[in-house]
Amino acid sequence: MEHGFIAWAKQRAARLPNVQLGIGDDCALLAPTGEDIVVTTDSLCDGTHFVLSECGPKAVGHKLVSVNLSDLASMAAEPIAVFLSLCLPRHHSGEIGAEIFEGVCESCERHRVAIAGGDTNVWDGPLVVHMTAIGKAPVGGCWLRSGASVGDAIVVTGKLGGSIRGKHLTFEPRLSLAKKLHALGIVRGSTDISDGLGIDLLNMTVASKCGAEVDLDRIPISDDAITLSESTGRPPLEHAIGDGEDFELLLAVSRDRLEELPSQIDGVPLTTIGTFVSRTGLWSKTRSGIAQMQPKGYVHG
Amino acid sequence: MEHGFIAWAKQRAARLPNVQLGIGDDCALLAPTGEDIVVTTDSLCDGTHFVLSECGPKAVGHKLVSVNLSDLASMAAEPIAVFLSLCLPRHHSGEIGAEIFEGVCESCERHRVAIAGGDTNVWDGPLVVHMTAIGKAPVGGCWLRSGASVGDAIVVTGKLGGSIRGKHLTFEPRLSLAKKLHALGIVRGSTDISDGLGIDLLNMTVASKCGAEVDLDRIPISDDAITLSESTGRPPLEHAIGDGEDFELLLAVSRDRLEELPSQIDGVPLTTIGTFVSRTGLWSKTRSGIAQMQPKGYVHG
Repeated sequence: MEHGFIAWAKQRAARLPNVQLGIGDDCALLAPTGEDIVVTTDSLCDGTHFVLSECGPKAVGHKLVSVNLSDLASMAAEPIAVFLSLCLPRHHSGEIGAEIFEGVCESCERHRVAIAGGDTNVWDGPLVVHMTAIGKAPVGGCWLRSGASVGDAIVVTGKLGGSIRGKHLTFEPRLSLAKKLHALGIVRGSTDISDGLGIDLLNMTVASKCGAEVDLDRIPISDDAITLSESTGRPPLEHAIGDGEDFELLLAVSRDRLEELPSQIDGVPLTTIGTFVSRTGLWSKTRSGIAQMQPKGYVHG
Repeated sequence: MEHGFIAWAKQRAARLPNVQLGIGDDCALLAPTGEDIVVTTDSLCDGTHFVLSECGPKAVGHKLVSVNLSDLASMAAEPIAVFLSLCLPRHHSGEIGAEIFEGVCESCERHRVAIAGGDTNVWDGPLVVHMTAIGKAPVGGCWLRSGASVGDAIVVTGKLGGSIRGKHLTFEPRLSLAKKLHALGIVRGSTDISDGLGIDLLNMTVASKCGAEVDLDRIPISDDAITLSESTGRPPLEHAIGDGEDFELLLAVSRDRLEELPSQIDGVPLTTIGTFVSRTGLWSKTRSGIAQMQPKGYVHG
């Protein structure tokens, strides 16, 4: 299968100027960037990150691109090219591979990213898809997870929780929002919310050697979290804190420039939900006082 | 598992100056190269590219690095960093992950390449490992698969065939050889032999819009091909032409500078086996004349 597939893929993929040599040789060649090269890599496995029989191959391709571009967005990097690697189940491998590639192409075209290479394998296991995305750092430098300072505001994009109801497959990586926000120069650190607000915030505080105090009442809860809550019996807030795969951005914004933070960008709300503090760990602030906060979001009544 | 693993991996991996930011953030940052950025990506699946229960996890780590560095060697690129992605079977995932990483570290240390990032997943399927390697183009530019011209000599490194007997796990990527050979300025095109001499030579002729005429008597046959031949009953030459995963280099060398080609580099023989010709396709030359050559190596008596 591989040769016909590669020939087709080469034709199907858009050609973009930063790629000197794309699909078809032993390696790809990208033009030198002048800025730092930003690299991220993610695998998605059938049964863990998607269920192929439910979502279909094209949605897997979309998700794969979005997950990788979300990592670039969280650094405010500009994507250049992606590399796709497929481990296809033997049964219907050709059709599945082609549909995934179509999904990858559609997403890459929307974000003006080149598909510059990859590899395909057919095996006896379930579908595994893999992508490496390469971008360049913005002028002024990337946002890092370790960039938060005591006193910075904790800001999230969008609304959180319940992504398992569908958003985990169809979310929009916050590239455009990140680019506009980076230009304002008010963000000092960032990560994307992939493991869940609580865990990712904890990771950010550890990397930044500080703690976080969250105003629980301010966490933006998605409609999906509310709907999901009806079937799980857990409060919507628990879903907003604990659910993974929101793929929103979690930002540290300079407190003294917080007034410059727009209330929304591209229609996506930006919400201040707390403050990075010197006391390490996660802390929740409610009307009844300050308490230790569970990263997984368990809210005790 | 992931957090403890990442913390350990971060300590274990060597730090190298080209990596501004390595394991632990959403993306890695590599210093701008000044030269073209060279990128390759490869997945290995249990049961297809290795048998985990036979070779053990560390050998998988070694092979994964070598396969990727072989692609860089075939372009005469200098490796900078690799990115590792693991889909680990649930049973003993921690031990398997750690042993693979150890193998990756050992290989990367030997070649002075940084492990700059990756991701780990635990799932219900068999082991899949994935790597993306990033390098920089040599001054003077990369060797391309499409670089062969009519009249160029066809040259191979090492000896071919029978790698399934062990070499496919333990081979040495030809980075150092490629670097020394590139400095001579006599090579015009290259690929690595991963699918087998016949298929890779055919691919090279297609990319270079020419054909190839091979002197069958000159193909360097490995001892493994001879030993394997005893059990398969197929001639050693068939194994040398048809077997995959030699990971030697297949080179196009300017005919008028062929006398500058060393007979060996680093103890690895360089053998001229034929000529790129204008008539497309693969052709074999023996004492009985010229005949069409089967890419898979079937030798008819």
